[in-house]
Amino acid sequence: MPDPLPPTHQTPDEFRAAGHAAVDWLADFLAGIADRPITPDVAPGDVRASLPAHAPEVGEPFEALLDDVDRLIAPALTHWQHPGFYGYFPGNSSPPSVLGDLISSGLGTQGMLWSTGPACTELETHVLDWLIDLCGLPDRFRSDGPGGGVIQDSASSATLCAILAARDRSGGAAALPSLRAYTSSQAHSSVEKGVRVAGFAVDQLRSIATDADHAMDPAALAAAIAADREAGLVPCIVVATVGTTSSGAVDPLSAIAEIASAAGAWLHVDAAWAGSAAVCPEHQHLLDGLDRADSYCFNPHKWLLTNFDCTAFYVADRGPLLDSLSILPEYLRNAASDAGEVIDYRDWQVPLGRRFRSLKLWFVLRSYGAEGLRAHIRHHVAAAAALADRIDAHPRLELAAPLSLALACLRHVDGDEATEALHAAVNATGEAFLTHTKLDDRYVLRVAVGGTWTTTEHVQRLGDLLEQLA
Amino acid sequence: MPDPLPPTHQTPDEFRAAGHAAVDWLADFLAGIADRPITPDVAPGDVRASLPAHAPEVGEPFEALLDDVDRLIAPALTHWQHPGFYGYFPGNSSPPSVLGDLISSGLGTQGMLWSTGPACTELETHVLDWLIDLCGLPDRFRSDGPGGGVIQDSASSATLCAILAARDRSGGAAALPSLRAYTSSQAHSSVEKGVRVAGFAVDQLRSIATDADHAMDPAALAAAIAADREAGLVPCIVVATVGTTSSGAVDPLSAIAEIASAAGAWLHVDAAWAGSAAVCPEHQHLLDGLDRADSYCFNPHKWLLTNFDCTAFYVADRGPLLDSLSILPEYLRNAASDAGEVIDYRDWQVPLGRRFRSLKLWFVLRSYGAEGLRAHIRHHVAAAAALADRIDAHPRLELAAPLSLALACLRHVDGDEATEALHAAVNATGEAFLTHTKLDDRYVLRVAVGGTWTTTEHVQRLGDLLEQLA
Repeated sequence: MPDPLPPTHQTPDEFRAAGHAAVDWLADFLAGIADRPITPDVAPGDVRASLPAHAPEVGEPFEALLDDVDRLIAPALTHWQHPGFYGYFPGNSSPPSVLGDLISSGLGTQGMLWSTGPACTELETHVLDWLIDLCGLPDRFRSDGPGGGVIQDSASSATLCAILAARDRSGGAAALPSLRAYTSSQAHSSVEKGVRVAGFAVDQLRSIATDADHAMDPAALAAAIAADREAGLVPCIVVATVGTTSSGAVDPLSAIAEIASAAGAWLHVDAAWAGSAAVCPEHQHLLDGLDRADSYCFNPHKWLLTNFDCTAFYVADRGPLLDSLSILPEYLRNAASDAGEVIDYRDWQVPLGRRFRSLKLWFVLRSYGAEGLRAHIRHHVAAAAALADRIDAHPRLELAAPLSLALACLRHVDGDEATEALHAAVNATGEAFLTHTKLDDRYVLRVAVGGTWTTTEHVQRLGDLLEQLA
Repeated sequence: MPDPLPPTHQTPDEFRAAGHAAVDWLADFLAGIADRPITPDVAPGDVRASLPAHAPEVGEPFEALLDDVDRLIAPALTHWQHPGFYGYFPGNSSPPSVLGDLISSGLGTQGMLWSTGPACTELETHVLDWLIDLCGLPDRFRSDGPGGGVIQDSASSATLCAILAARDRSGGAAALPSLRAYTSSQAHSSVEKGVRVAGFAVDQLRSIATDADHAMDPAALAAAIAADREAGLVPCIVVATVGTTSSGAVDPLSAIAEIASAAGAWLHVDAAWAGSAAVCPEHQHLLDGLDRADSYCFNPHKWLLTNFDCTAFYVADRGPLLDSLSILPEYLRNAASDAGEVIDYRDWQVPLGRRFRSLKLWFVLRSYGAEGLRAHIRHHVAAAAALADRIDAHPRLELAAPLSLALACLRHVDGDEATEALHAAVNATGEAFLTHTKLDDRYVLRVAVGGTWTTTEHVQRLGDLLEQLA
């Protein structure tokens, strides 16, 4: 008979010692992160070349692993938690979130069904209801009515689920060739990816024109829908964006909801980044009209101090979602599900299995409290506003779009070449990291303020760099 | 100007202290888990009733959170890490995996592109190549050829990606109504869910009959494909299973590959649970024929000591996968991607964002070493074999299917009612937890041996319980 446990299996006491060492390494990493370059000096293949070609035959001590993280991995990462990271959108992490996730990993709960982890399911429902209050979201998304919330891995997956529910509500596979989807030309690429996954041809997604501020033009949407209906086609879903990726533009939800509703189309609202700002009452007007949406998502893993992955996805009516995503094989049947008294979140998402992700969100909401979360958002918004003022006042810089919350878009007045050179020069300092986009066919730098460790002083330093290097 | 950081923001030193407390709580939890009942004594709504209706206005200390985990959450979970958990398939966790995940959370890397985390991407590619060697998988899945591996969140998502690649290789949305998919009647529900997500009607999935041992009947597959081709339909994908959920049956891959290949259909092999056993040379024969498959997945998060989520997904040719899943908006363009020299894993999955999941897998492979992983599998297989012998020898119990690796299926000789009563009696002890299925239309108990902390003695104790309670 083999050993009852593999010889290298760690005991609880060994876990305790290794865990303390891992926490200490992370604490030191966080304490020193501002002194690291944000992007690593590595070429493709460098990391692999530093690793052995095969897994070891015999287990290695934990110290060797931690040493290699320190020596080979951390120096070869782009540091999303660096206070000078302004690229893409923020990917927040925070101590309470990291530790909530640690406990989730240690509990090792798989929450596909209520019965496979009752607290896993109920805490998720509960904190998603908490977010409705915190963010002033419509009551129709609350779990005590026909709607409810679920944590998805990403806004991409939430948008896909909305598309699937809308598709199947509109007749499903049989009707698919006649269905049409609508989103603005500034919408996130996940909308196109989602409709493709769902079986639509690319030309079944209508790209709606935007206004001067890059927000969807409702008149253009109404015209596209009218033309399609005229042609006997079926408007299936409209995806509106609150806070577009390129410039943070906000589609006019009320006007869009009116048009979508009249056409019988599902309205999904993607506020992946901007949605976190709704913890502040002064920003909740961005969501005016959301009370007529069928579904909504935003990412606490972007700007609400919660580690990836954590997308809050809400539906006003869970019926169509469950109709699309439920399958009940015998091996998953159980008394609680059969009684219809519980939520089984496997029916609210594409995968079957799921982590206990609400734990980290619960830790964040309780550790910071509503006032801490509002302070987090407000200090970034204020810092970005101050930066935008400096850009506006500088003779060789200009804002490329209206400041949106904590996202400032800028360019060099001398044109794309100068903007690209400025981009390279800022990133080369290692102190700040920007990514780019194109707006009105011009190269634009994005400054997405929102890092967990980004202080007002860091943003001021970025302003100094931009002024000097322009 | 607001404070530079929210008032409750934890410093690195506070993180260190809270982290040690969290690790200590987990170590104690693991040390005592065998003494907890496996399933909690809670009714739907109990957990929510114990929680405040609103998030707190002011942040709370970490001790309060940990205390509530201990008091409200842990007692209301089904304990997948309990050594007496034999339900579903195992959902392994292990100390090195938990700590690898902790470091991943702390680093806060988002690895959608090589450039957003070079080590995140390269370590993933590297350890997936390691698994090819460890498990004796075909070289065609290695990343140095046209194929390669990627970590997905679940076998459901891996199967979906295979379906999407196959669908689009067969003509995509335009051809969709004529496409047909094939899987056995014993395949996992994720196959049906995957084709539905991809826009197929349910009747475009052919359910193929199985033999007496519940494995796909190749003759039935060949007949179904021939009939469809005769009718002018297009065989798009065959999904074969190595280790079915109900009984661990193994579809005959070589024969199936021959048929799929002749029909021009994609062959995806789902070995979600059984695939981990291939770390042992004596079990690699289960994958005979895999060298002709187009894609393959198995879940280290089931039986290879790695926390959920971690599905290893391989393709023999990444071209069709990338054709299905790539979109390149301007805001994601970067020099490394433009040069075509790197893997951008966002193009290998449905979501855009992604965690640094290879870190936990790397920690597991290095901590246990190949010999530790083999010992892990072998002790479960041996313990399950001993249990199967006892079932076989018992006058009131019988095996309901051939023992498959460490999965034993049994029933009471007196029929379904007696089997259901036995099921309830075993689970009521709190010492062991079984789930059920139906095989040949009869109620069957599944014993999936494979928990990280499950020793030979625990399985012997389950044998005692079964004998006494039968």
